[in-house]
Amino acid sequence: MSTKSVSASRAEMSEIVLPNDTNSLGNLMGGQLLHWMDICAAISSQRHAHCVCVTAAVDSVEFHSAIELGEVVTIKSQVNRVFRTSMEVEINVWAENPSKRTVRKSNRAFFTFVAVDSEKRAAVAPQIIPETEEERQAYEDALRRREMRLVMAGRLPLDQAEHLTAEFDPLVRKRS
Amino acid sequence: MSTKSVSASRAEMSEIVLPNDTNSLGNLMGGQLLHWMDICAAISSQRHAHCVCVTAAVDSVEFHSAIELGEVVTIKSQVNRVFRTSMEVEINVWAENPSKRTVRKSNRAFFTFVAVDSEKRAAVAPQIIPETEEERQAYEDALRRREMRLVMAGRLPLDQAEHLTAEFDPLVRKRS
Amino acid sequence: MSTKSVSASRAEMSEIVLPNDTNSLGNLMGGQLLHWMDICAAISSQRHAHCVCVTAAVDSVEFHSAIELGEVVTIKSQVNRVFRTSMEVEINVWAENPSKRTVRKSNRAFFTFVAVDSEKRAAVAPQIIPETEEERQAYEDALRRREMRLVMAGRLPLDQAEHLTAEFDPLVRKRS
Amino acid sequence: MSTKSVSASRAEMSEIVLPNDTNSLGNLMGGQLLHWMDICAAISSQRHAHCVCVTAAVDSVEFHSAIELGEVVTIKSQVNRVFRTSMEVEINVWAENPSKRTVRKSNRAFFTFVAVDSEKRAAVAPQIIPETEEERQAYEDALRRREMRLVMAGRLPLDQAEHLTAEFDPLVRKRS
Amino acid sequence: MSTKSVSASRAEMSEIVLPNDTNSLGNLMGGQLLHWMDICAAISSQRHAHCVCVTAAVDSVEFHSAIELGEVVTIKSQVNRVFRTSMEVEINVWAENPSKRTVRKSNRAFFTFVAVDSEKRAAVAPQIIPETEEERQAYEDALRRREMRLVMAGRLPLDQAEHLTAEFDPLVRKRS
Amino acid sequence: MSTKSVSASRAEMSEIVLPNDTNSLGNLMGGQLLHWMDICAAISSQRHAHCVCVTAAVDSVEFHSAIELGEVVTIKSQVNRVFRTSMEVEINVWAENPSKRTVRKSNRAFFTFVAVDSEKRAAVAPQIIPETEEERQAYEDALRRREMRLVMAGRLPLDQAEHLTAEFDPLVRKRS
Repeated sequence: MSTKSVSASRAEMSEIVLPNDTNSLGNLMGGQLLHWMDICAAISSQRHAHCVCVTAAVDSVEFHSAIELGEVVTIKSQVNRVFRTSMEVEINVWAENPSKRTVRKSNRAFFTFVAVDSEKRAAVAPQIIPETEEERQAYEDALRRREMRLVMAGRLPLDQAEHLTAEFDPLVRKRS
Repeated sequence: MSTKSVSASRAEMSEIVLPNDTNSLGNLMGGQLLHWMDICAAISSQRHAHCVCVTAAVDSVEFHSAIELGEVVTIKSQVNRVFRTSMEVEINVWAENPSKRTVRKSNRAFFTFVAVDSEKRAAVAPQIIPETEEERQAYEDALRRREMRLVMAGRLPLDQAEHLTAEFDPLVRKRS
Repeated sequence: MSTKSVSASRAEMSEIVLPNDTNSLGNLMGGQLLHWMDICAAISSQRHAHCVCVTAAVDSVEFHSAIELGEVVTIKSQVNRVFRTSMEVEINVWAENPSKRTVRKSNRAFFTFVAVDSEKRAAVAPQIIPETEEERQAYEDALRRREMRLVMAGRLPLDQAEHLTAEFDPLVRKRS
Repeated sequence: MSTKSVSASRAEMSEIVLPNDTNSLGNLMGGQLLHWMDICAAISSQRHAHCVCVTAAVDSVEFHSAIELGEVVTIKSQVNRVFRTSMEVEINVWAENPSKRTVRKSNRAFFTFVAVDSEKRAAVAPQIIPETEEERQAYEDALRRREMRLVMAGRLPLDQAEHLTAEFDPLVRKRS
Repeated sequence: MSTKSVSASRAEMSEIVLPNDTNSLGNLMGGQLLHWMDICAAISSQRHAHCVCVTAAVDSVEFHSAIELGEVVTIKSQVNRVFRTSMEVEINVWAENPSKRTVRKSNRAFFTFVAVDSEKRAAVAPQIIPETEEERQAYEDALRRREMRLVMAGRLPLDQAEHLTAEFDPLVRKRS
Repeated sequence: MSTKSVSASRAEMSEIVLPNDTNSLGNLMGGQLLHWMDICAAISSQRHAHCVCVTAAVDSVEFHSAIELGEVVTIKSQVNRVFRTSMEVEINVWAENPSKRTVRKSNRAFFTFVAVDSEKRAAVAPQIIPETEEERQAYEDALRRREMRLVMAGRLPLDQAEHLTAEFDPLVRKRS
């Protein structure tokens, strides 16, 4: 199976915040934004894996600033790393107010997608080769984030999380 | 400000999975489910705080089993604990296939909502009093989960996360 | 075919009234509410009959009070009685204003659903056994309402409507 | 206040049944059809009353034949009679299958709308003058249907329903 | 294959402009109107051709006046002429403000639809016979508009556009 | 008023074709695609003009190839030229089938948007400076397309369309 570049998986989506996307205060609802992020990330994973990909996990997401009715939401996504049948997809979100000429970073999130074949079984996805320094960093960090997911889900004991704990070492040493 | 019970915040929502909620395989898209969970959790937080509440954070969510077109999704939510202006809302999701007579647990997730006043500023929410054993346990765990959120977001050093680290202690001792 | 309880058919649905659900006055449109009631009732009938159920009739519905943008609509439904392949589903609707701390009864309605098999033919639904006093009353009244439906549809002469006319008897006697 | 013709209130709406309008069998859901009927009837009532009109009641509706995905639904509505601030709107529905060259009558229903002013208070609507024989018949029948609604809602004793009971007289005499 | 009348292809659609159909100024978005026009025209073409018909081209459309939230959009369409497998559908749009008692012409547009069989291949549509003077004029003009489309698309040299150039002749002569 | 670059106006939007976007053959409906193109073009024009912009005209659009359920639609738009208060926005559309690894050009279209101020009056938009060879060509062609629009709309006599007729000259000479 051939390898592929990160850039081949990039997807971009822009949406105008319409009335039904907002709550009583006229602000974009968090769930609607997650819905758009999921579709954008699905496109990235399918561009990489060349088959249908389904959401397996959503890492924690923070919503820092309100996005208002009529503002433009821009979502960019890419596959950071492949773990046999699953992929970490990074999603960055900006909110833009054309009239006020402002663009602000809204969210950065990581979704995990699994490639599935036509019988709905997990399928092996092609490996990804990071090319830029930034992509290589994201590739490295993806391993740590995956360990964190497994620890949080109770599927990996903390002391077997090799890459994760290196990071925690100074704190751990200090405490003991 | 008066206190309130957990049960007063409970909300329930049932939806039939319709064609537009599904991907090419006929399975419910993760983003659509998150959208419904967000609305149900918003109802719980507003029932508790008696004002508009907005999504501040979504803890990591795993999607274990596919939910199919025509199946019934049932979502139940409640406020577990209040932290001045923010609330942890617990959301449980079941997928039900009336024809096959099956009901299966699909997701358990924790969203954080912030109460806001009519000027869109954070507002103090009433305290919650857990009444049953289960509610008291959720109340305790909410504190730990909050520390985890703050550590993950880089807003609390790991060694100051008192309730969280108690849990990690055996592991930490073993490693040092 | 086994019998089932009324409580096993109960369904609950909560929705926040969003902009597209409202008319120019910012009030929930009657047709949108009927749409939600139909979905909730469909879930109840399918929970009872364990197959797809389709709307066969909607009894008259009154809309007494306006429900506003941002308010919460809660719909609860249950199967009252089974007539071989058709079922009477009772639907109760409340409108809730979290900020004003008000909950008001909005509607009570009766929909008739028919169970259908995979070839789209009417299928026999399991009998229902009312257990509480309230369920027994609803079970009795369902027979009268069914006669009324048949009389109104011209499929049953008024003087053959046994249970219905008992009610009208005093009036009839008085008039003749 | 001037009078108006029935024909000035006529509205027509055609829709193609799309996937999201259908249940698991690929048939139009009853609630979606009621939603469309409500919008069409709202247009008729607003064309007559020249102000916003809201749904006050829906008379019982029967769904005789399934309407399938891809078929065309045509809805026609008109105001039959005005009762000061409320109006009876008649709605007729046809289902059409262009490929099979079939058109079949699907529903006939009566909705009651109330005219409201900008302060959301009930407003007097202009009187309607039936012009054709068919319109005059509908005008007459509307009075009887209104009495039936009031009797059903418990707001009019059966023996004070003058126009309604004339119809029931032969039956009543036979029984007594 | 039998011929058919223009009137048999007529379709009418009315919609109330709802919040999600509007931009930040509360005006109907052009793309939403085109979407409705496409559905209405699809109904006309399917009523004529008795099979699924797909949009092949949209002639230029101008949007002269803003249509506001709560106003009623009425769309009427008909097949003007058939060119073997393709049809020119004329669409006229009115915007109506019931409260202000105004109706104004909003758009006139021409869409081209192609009849397709169940294998998704272009299918021959029945010929159309214009009956009124107006229909005959539209039938004649349709030929000219078709030549214009072919010239614009680079599929017909201008000097082979017989019907089109007759119109341009005075200008052409004047210039040469 | 400052000038701006074409690249600052670029917008990109990707969408997965969902069931409700398709007709009975499972193909994307032309009207839905136009709706998405309009939103993407609106974002471009607002990024350029820094105020709300409304659709004033849509040039003719051809739909060459069917786009299927589950395929990815990618839309890219940019402002080509500004004519005081109006702008020509170019829109290019691709259809992508991740599983078949195909990407095909679907449409190229030109929409005209008008900048409007908060009182809904036409507002002057900043001039645009084409920078690349391709942008300069689009800038030149935009003038010709504008003349064509005016001629087609009957607002400019053909023999006053200076830039347009240069193109037609060889044909014209040949005919005369």
